[in-house]
Amino acid sequence: MLSNHLQNGMETAKLMWSRLPNNEDGDDDDDGVGFLKKNDGSSVESLDYEVIENYAYREEQAIKPEGTGLAAVLINISVENFAGWKYSLTFSIIQKSYVAGFIVYVLINLALVFSSVYIITQFAPAAAGSGIPEIKGYLNGIDTHGILFFRTLIGKIFGSIGSVGGGLALGKEGPLVHIGACIASLLGQGGSRKYHLSSRWLQVFKSDRDRRDLVTCGCAAGVAAAFRAPVGGVLFALEEVTSWWRSQLMWRVFFTSAIVAVVVRTAMGWCKNGNCGHFGSGGFIIWDISGLEYELSLNPVYGSSFFIVCWPSNQSSFSGQEDYSFRELFPMAVIGVIGGLLGALFNQLTLFITRWRRNYLHRKGNRVKIIEVCLISVITSVISFGLPLFRNCSPCPESDASSGIECPNAPGVYGNYVNFYCGRDKEYNDLATIFFNTQDDAIRNLFSAKTIHEFSAKSLLTFLVMFYTLAVVTFGTAVPAGQFVPGIMIGSTYGRLVGMFVVNFYQKLNIEEGTYALLGAASFLGGSMRMTVSLCVIMVEITNNLKLLPLIMLVLLISKAVGDAFNEGLYEEQARLRGIPLLESRPKYQMRKMTAKEACGTQKVIYFPRTIKVADIVSILRSNSHNGFPVIDHSRSGETLVIGLVLRIHLLVLLQSKADFQHSPLPSDLRGRSLPIRHSLSEFVKPASSKGISIEDIHLSSDDLEMYIDLAPFVNPSPYVVPEDMSLTKVYNLFRQLGLRHVLVVPRASRVIGMITRKDLLMEDNEDSATVELQPTSVRARYRDRRVPTRNPDPQHPLLDGLVV
Amino acid sequence: MLSNHLQNGMETAKLMWSRLPNNEDGDDDDDGVGFLKKNDGSSVESLDYEVIENYAYREEQAIKPEGTGLAAVLINISVENFAGWKYSLTFSIIQKSYVAGFIVYVLINLALVFSSVYIITQFAPAAAGSGIPEIKGYLNGIDTHGILFFRTLIGKIFGSIGSVGGGLALGKEGPLVHIGACIASLLGQGGSRKYHLSSRWLQVFKSDRDRRDLVTCGCAAGVAAAFRAPVGGVLFALEEVTSWWRSQLMWRVFFTSAIVAVVVRTAMGWCKNGNCGHFGSGGFIIWDISGLEYELSLNPVYGSSFFIVCWPSNQSSFSGQEDYSFRELFPMAVIGVIGGLLGALFNQLTLFITRWRRNYLHRKGNRVKIIEVCLISVITSVISFGLPLFRNCSPCPESDASSGIECPNAPGVYGNYVNFYCGRDKEYNDLATIFFNTQDDAIRNLFSAKTIHEFSAKSLLTFLVMFYTLAVVTFGTAVPAGQFVPGIMIGSTYGRLVGMFVVNFYQKLNIEEGTYALLGAASFLGGSMRMTVSLCVIMVEITNNLKLLPLIMLVLLISKAVGDAFNEGLYEEQARLRGIPLLESRPKYQMRKMTAKEACGTQKVIYFPRTIKVADIVSILRSNSHNGFPVIDHSRSGETLVIGLVLRIHLLVLLQSKADFQHSPLPSDLRGRSLPIRHSLSEFVKPASSKGISIEDIHLSSDDLEMYIDLAPFVNPSPYVVPEDMSLTKVYNLFRQLGLRHVLVVPRASRVIGMITRKDLLMEDNEDSATVELQPTSVRARYRDRRVPTRNPDPQHPLLDGLVV
Repeated sequence: MLSNHLQNGMETAKLMWSRLPNNEDGDDDDDGVGFLKKNDGSSVESLDYEVIENYAYREEQAIKPEGTGLAAVLINISVENFAGWKYSLTFSIIQKSYVAGFIVYVLINLALVFSSVYIITQFAPAAAGSGIPEIKGYLNGIDTHGILFFRTLIGKIFGSIGSVGGGLALGKEGPLVHIGACIASLLGQGGSRKYHLSSRWLQVFKSDRDRRDLVTCGCAAGVAAAFRAPVGGVLFALEEVTSWWRSQLMWRVFFTSAIVAVVVRTAMGWCKNGNCGHFGSGGFIIWDISGLEYELSLNPVYGSSFFIVCWPSNQSSFSGQEDYSFRELFPMAVIGVIGGLLGALFNQLTLFITRWRRNYLHRKGNRVKIIEVCLISVITSVISFGLPLFRNCSPCPESDASSGIECPNAPGVYGNYVNFYCGRDKEYNDLATIFFNTQDDAIRNLFSAKTIHEFSAKSLLTFLVMFYTLAVVTFGTAVPAGQFVPGIMIGSTYGRLVGMFVVNFYQKLNIEEGTYALLGAASFLGGSMRMTVSLCVIMVEITNNLKLLPLIMLVLLISKAVGDAFNEGLYEEQARLRGIPLLESRPKYQMRKMTAKEACGTQKVIYFPRTIKVADIVSILRSNSHNGFPVIDHSRSGETLVIGLVLRIHLLVLLQSKADFQHSPLPSDLRGRSLPIRHSLSEFVKPASSKGISIEDIHLSSDDLEMYIDLAPFVNPSPYVVPEDMSLTKVYNLFRQLGLRHVLVVPRASRVIGMITRKDLLMEDNEDSATVELQPTSVRARYRDRRVPTRNPDPQHPLLDGLVV
Repeated sequence: MLSNHLQNGMETAKLMWSRLPNNEDGDDDDDGVGFLKKNDGSSVESLDYEVIENYAYREEQAIKPEGTGLAAVLINISVENFAGWKYSLTFSIIQKSYVAGFIVYVLINLALVFSSVYIITQFAPAAAGSGIPEIKGYLNGIDTHGILFFRTLIGKIFGSIGSVGGGLALGKEGPLVHIGACIASLLGQGGSRKYHLSSRWLQVFKSDRDRRDLVTCGCAAGVAAAFRAPVGGVLFALEEVTSWWRSQLMWRVFFTSAIVAVVVRTAMGWCKNGNCGHFGSGGFIIWDISGLEYELSLNPVYGSSFFIVCWPSNQSSFSGQEDYSFRELFPMAVIGVIGGLLGALFNQLTLFITRWRRNYLHRKGNRVKIIEVCLISVITSVISFGLPLFRNCSPCPESDASSGIECPNAPGVYGNYVNFYCGRDKEYNDLATIFFNTQDDAIRNLFSAKTIHEFSAKSLLTFLVMFYTLAVVTFGTAVPAGQFVPGIMIGSTYGRLVGMFVVNFYQKLNIEEGTYALLGAASFLGGSMRMTVSLCVIMVEITNNLKLLPLIMLVLLISKAVGDAFNEGLYEEQARLRGIPLLESRPKYQMRKMTAKEACGTQKVIYFPRTIKVADIVSILRSNSHNGFPVIDHSRSGETLVIGLVLRIHLLVLLQSKADFQHSPLPSDLRGRSLPIRHSLSEFVKPASSKGISIEDIHLSSDDLEMYIDLAPFVNPSPYVVPEDMSLTKVYNLFRQLGLRHVLVVPRASRVIGMITRKDLLMEDNEDSATVELQPTSVRARYRDRRVPTRNPDPQHPLLDGLVV
């Protein structure tokens, strides 16, 4: 069928294409290593390449997770130290004067926040916000400019320290996911070239697929570091951020998360000995609401009294968590509904505010952004300091020596019952306990068991309203900002409110308000972010209590359902707002009524002939912005044949290097010359941290323009094709499942050369199978005993082939 | 391009094809509901269908998990009662005579095992073994006859009770996975028709995809029920059994698992009050090796003394698990290596034995199978009773009133330090503690903390060798048999051996042998089954100790790597042995050097014309065993066009019903008649529990044979096509990722009608995106503002569209 010279050209094409790193069939396993079919039949190069790849992966895995883990530790140590120092200083000053303390408090916060917003606006604008929508977009195929730069990483780390330490209503968990992705991507391309931090032997991740895998691992590492939740990290990567999941990825992601968790744990163990200043047991959110806070046993101040909680007399706090009655399911469902409503409202409000900011406020320049954030910082400080002042102190509860709970405590250190602006000694300020505190400690206090009636409904309600408003206003400012911790704060506040109501109403002793607070936190996150499995596992891992799993699931189910009735999840809304159009996993409904041809529209396809004048390439590339062009050739019988697809980026590299220019318009293989490979693979790699080359950057002399290029070696010889009248839903599935970038729409075939079925793809000698009755799922078996010509030289292929590194 | 009458024919084809339930594009979302493009533009039917589907899913989810959960509870209650009763009886008899006790013990075991093997051989042969390889094959596309029948379900349940209760060296966890899948599938098709247990309103899961999803949920439910590990169940389904994963499945699977966990928990709570005889806290394997066995707090016998374990003086057992030194990592790595070696050896030995059984022993009929199992039962009884007799008893350790550990205990009840054939009162038999006991209790004893030096190395070694041999021999007999529990037994034995060595060698107090036993269990399972993430999570969930996660991962990593050096995982080996050729997720290496055309081989493609004589269909179907046939038609210009693919099963239904036979050889739409739809959808459904129809079953009169059928309404109008010279790796990915059954190989296209890119598939008005710099991952952005003609009437599509039920 194919004429000889075409066949030759295509062989060359396959050989060369297999070596191009930026080929466009995203998840296609063969393309990184390639469809190598040299004429002499050797495949050594391909093997080598794979070996290098595996080797590199191993190396990388040993390094990157530690990077993420250490970044997480660095941020936590810094935040805890800044915050701890801030609170101790403020607290020591307010012993003398509340006014001076107030001023110091506001100024410290302002300084920290200003440092953050200054770094972001001047140095790393892409580091603002949580970064999760952008990473999600990246893994879906949309590269927002700058999100994986080295400067973004630095900006994110130091910006997070400033914004979280400065007491704004935001968290450090989203940024940690972004940081993990940045570290992974930078290590993947061998460090940042611009800042001379590159290392040659790391530069082995050439293809988009490898980089995408790395970024996925990085996201999981970020979650694992933020919450010390390795399994939650894996599921977060799987459920929320990735668009294409390969089974080989599972173990890699899991391995990365585990290493991160170990690194974080090791660092924390080291810090427990007092090496890290204020950073001790706090900082990393692990709330143990079972009352058994043995995590804290080495804390020199509070440790000694903690284990007493698990005396037999206190057993109710153990089984109290588990032993819920069916009556309690109703208030829990109510929590779910509240979470769905407040979460959806949060998404909607932040969407409006962010849109307004983008369209009006932030257009006025960086100065406005800085002023805005500083203003918010001052407001936050005033509210968190001022509101507790207006709150009357409550007397400490009957002290139970065995409960290990002290009253009162100083603010800013671990513990409930914060004494703030109280007249007498044995009093505490319940609003200050949650408001005038680091967020992690506030959450720990909200989650705490055995502290029934610690908070008054009025305080909780005040806090809920104020903090919700602050969180909405803070979202979208030019600082790194995560939504996990604010969400948990909001959720646990109303959860505890419901819990208080339940305690009063049901008059049952073993109901813990802390459990309700936890469920509230889950419900708000579910209502806002709409994650399910991963959120559930993260909540379980951070509370270290597997028994609450069914309750958390129930609440999440309800809140997600309620939230979905109003709008999309936070990340999807924000991604759309930022112009990151995510390709969803399911085709849209109206695609059912369309064909592939209709989707292409009326736009004319621009063909390239196999051998083309350089001037023509330049003019075509200038005249449109297509990314791929079909290449056609004529067989000897004069028939036109599509020999493949050439990508714009590859054409640009060819034009820039000029190495393949030739004087003759004849294909090189027709001129009797074997095609020399003049390009190294790395030339075709688009670095992650640059914008790539554009046609305007390339300057060609008029002599160059008169020359020709034989495109055959550079085309993708077999892009995926669909017949013109295929349902667009099917096209969508093909596109989405394989992670493609281009699908060619071709006319309906006039004949069928063959059919490939399951049997044709099973290349093994199944000697035993002949004895068994074998039946494909829906149709009767075919006892065809035809063997594929090539026998399997290596039958040892485990199902998860690439898992072991 | 297409002539008018062809176009018409294809419209009809699309309409009808969309209604065929057994269409062959497995995971294709549009096909169940269809590419509905009626000429009048209405799509009411399609909507209705979807509504029904959603409704049905909701109903089913409320019922099936409970089924699986209840089955699990039933099995556990039965097993625990039989075993408990057996051991109490034996124990009461041996107070008088060891010989009589021995005889009773052997006979009870024999009776239980005989009942099991009798049920299996006579009633449900497909219920033998673990069932996981078969389920895995089913989800990969291979339907082993009978695995999802109702009788298999019943056989599996009662067979498991007999074989596990009878003390064989096998577990009930694998069978529970199979049971979950059976229940799911049966509920999916609306109960078993044969046994009049069907219910009409359940029969809504028509397509293969729905049934596959259900079976996946069932597997997860099985694991969740077996281990009370809902997250482990989800990951098991994801990592081990499914071949195609849809994001919508995630939440459904998770939901199912959680419901099962709740059902099991509820049932256990009810049983704790003594309603279930011997079944109390045992049975479900939850081993809490932290020393904090508060799960057992309500156990009337042992409960009272348990909470004392968490007195401050015993804190070392808490942090002792977590506070491992780096020196300990070496023995842990050794455990991983041992696990890999023993696991691979186990796979190899069972493979040999199973092959021998299949080829020689089991060919001789059911009688041989029964005798074989009974023989094994007697041997097992003799060894487990006899060996401890030869073992000298050890004196009880210094009794620590606060440790809550009693010595000695009676065998067969929960507790360490079993007194068996000991002369004095204060003695125990360490071999009987693990051997002469139910497996769950034995594992609990092996895992137990605070019992250093309970077991002697000699006993453990004896047990390891004997039990390993028994497990190998028992595997593959005609009883339901899981490998989890035997694997855990074997692994924890050598793990504890290593632990003993470490305790002696390092002389460190806070090393727990129980922790090493746990790691050993993980390593053996990893070395045998080669699961990673799911196994890790299951181990964590059953031990309820998140802190061991990094250690378990380390051990699993090593053991899987070591095992992979020798052979494939247990399930893959067994699947291949049983003739279930699994399509792996990665293409084989040699596919890189092949094209699609080469894979098709030289076999001639058999075309069907659009209108074909019935006699021709019959002769073609008789002459070969193909499952799909391309259908061609001629346009008015005489050009041949492939109009689609017709499936053998649909042809058989057409031949059987005869409703579409016509006298004229002209296509029906040419004769001016609109095509009436004479078939209901359900006719095309292949029931899961029958073999389907065969061409030999269809009897046609000679008049019938002379008639014609217009195939156009019944073809799949747009099967996926690949060009002839596409790399087989790419074809494999297409096939595997989309879960296809047929791919048509067509000639290289002569022209391109259009290109579909990301932008063409994003059907939404992104008003905000214009303001942002947008850049696809590897190439520069195209600011094409062309809109797809159809506007989106409903922009509220969350990313995980179908999650909320």
